[in-house]
Amino acid sequence: MKKFLAPQPILLPSPVLIIGTYGENDTPNIMNAAWGGIAASKPPCISISVQPIRLTHENIVKNKAFTVNIPSEKYAKQADYTGLVSGREFNKFEEAKLTAEKSALVHAPYIKEFPYCLECKLVDTVSVGSHTMFIGEIVGIVADGKVLGKNNLPDIKKVKPIMFGSFGSRAYYGVGNKIADAFSAGKKYKL
Amino acid sequence: MKKFLAPQPILLPSPVLIIGTYGENDTPNIMNAAWGGIAASKPPCISISVQPIRLTHENIVKNKAFTVNIPSEKYAKQADYTGLVSGREFNKFEEAKLTAEKSALVHAPYIKEFPYCLECKLVDTVSVGSHTMFIGEIVGIVADGKVLGKNNLPDIKKVKPIMFGSFGSRAYYGVGNKIADAFSAGKKYKL
Repeated sequence: MKKFLAPQPILLPSPVLIIGTYGENDTPNIMNAAWGGIAASKPPCISISVQPIRLTHENIVKNKAFTVNIPSEKYAKQADYTGLVSGREFNKFEEAKLTAEKSALVHAPYIKEFPYCLECKLVDTVSVGSHTMFIGEIVGIVADGKVLGKNNLPDIKKVKPIMFGSFGSRAYYGVGNKIADAFSAGKKYKL
Repeated sequence: MKKFLAPQPILLPSPVLIIGTYGENDTPNIMNAAWGGIAASKPPCISISVQPIRLTHENIVKNKAFTVNIPSEKYAKQADYTGLVSGREFNKFEEAKLTAEKSALVHAPYIKEFPYCLECKLVDTVSVGSHTMFIGEIVGIVADGKVLGKNNLPDIKKVKPIMFGSFGSRAYYGVGNKIADAFSAGKKYKL
C-alpha cells in the first residue's frame, strides 16, 4: 500500500563525507556532511552542500578548496563527532585524535588515517535554499594502498565506507553483500 | 602506505538513482544515475547529474520535473538494465516489467514496484563539465507502507536500497550491519 509522505531530504543511502578545510591561521578543520555526490565525470567533480552558518562554509569561500574524506567503519565515532561540535570551539582533529596532512595539490588538509580522500578545487558555488552547494573539481586522490584493488582503483569492500541511514534510521551502516554485477545484470532484458 | 591516484569520479558509496521522466507523447522513461545527492534541507532538494546526450536530459528540460526512484535489492537487475539501453530505442518500463505511475504532483512517472520515490520539480540547472546538474525540489514522496518505520519515515533496513561500488568494484551492494548511532557515537569525544 502506497503512502504519500511530506517532502523531506531523505535519500537512501546517503554518503558520509568528512569535509577538510583550513581556517584562521591555517588551523585544520573537519565537518560531517551527508549532502553531496559526484557532479560530473569529465573533469571529475563532486558537489557538497554546506549551511552558510558553518565554519567550513567560510573556509571554502576563502580558500576555494576542500577535501572529501571517506571514513572506514572503524572511524564512525570520529566521523560522527565532527558533526556534533563546531570548529569555532574545538580543534576537531586533535579531539578526535586524527592527523591533518596538507594536500600537495589544494590548500586543504586531508585526514591521514582515513582510507580514501578526494582533493578538490572549488569551481562553482550554487545557493539552494538552506544550503550552498560547493562544486569542486577532484584534482587528486589520496588512498591507502591497502584499499586498492583492480587497476589501482579503490575496492569498496576494502575501503569499508559507512553510509547514513538518514532521519528514518539515525545510524551509520556498513556495506553489505554484493547483489549484482553492474553494467551486466541488466543484460537479461532486451538489448 | 599512501598512494596518490589520478583524478576520477569515484565516491564511496554512490547511490543508485533511477530517474523517471516523460518523453514524446508522454511515453514514460527511466534511466540509471549514480551521480547525485541531497542538495538542501529547506526546501528539501536533490541534485542529479545527467549527460546532455541522454533522453532524460531532454525530458527534464521540457517538463521541468523528474522522479528519483530507489530500487530495493530485488530490483537490481531492472535498475542495471535502465542504464544499458536508451529510451530512444526501448520502452524500458515495458522491457523491465515495471509499472509507470503518474505522479500527482509533478509531470513525471514513478516506478510503482520500487519502495521509495521522490517527486521533484526542477528549480535550477547547472552545467558542470560533461554533465548537467538538475536540482529538483522534493515536493512529495511515495513510499511503500511496508518500508516505513518510526515517525512514518523510511527505514533503510526495510527499503533495502542498493549502492554502486563505482569503477573499482563494478557491482551493486546492499546495506550491511549497523556500525554506530548517528548524532550519538561521537559523544565519547569532547563536547
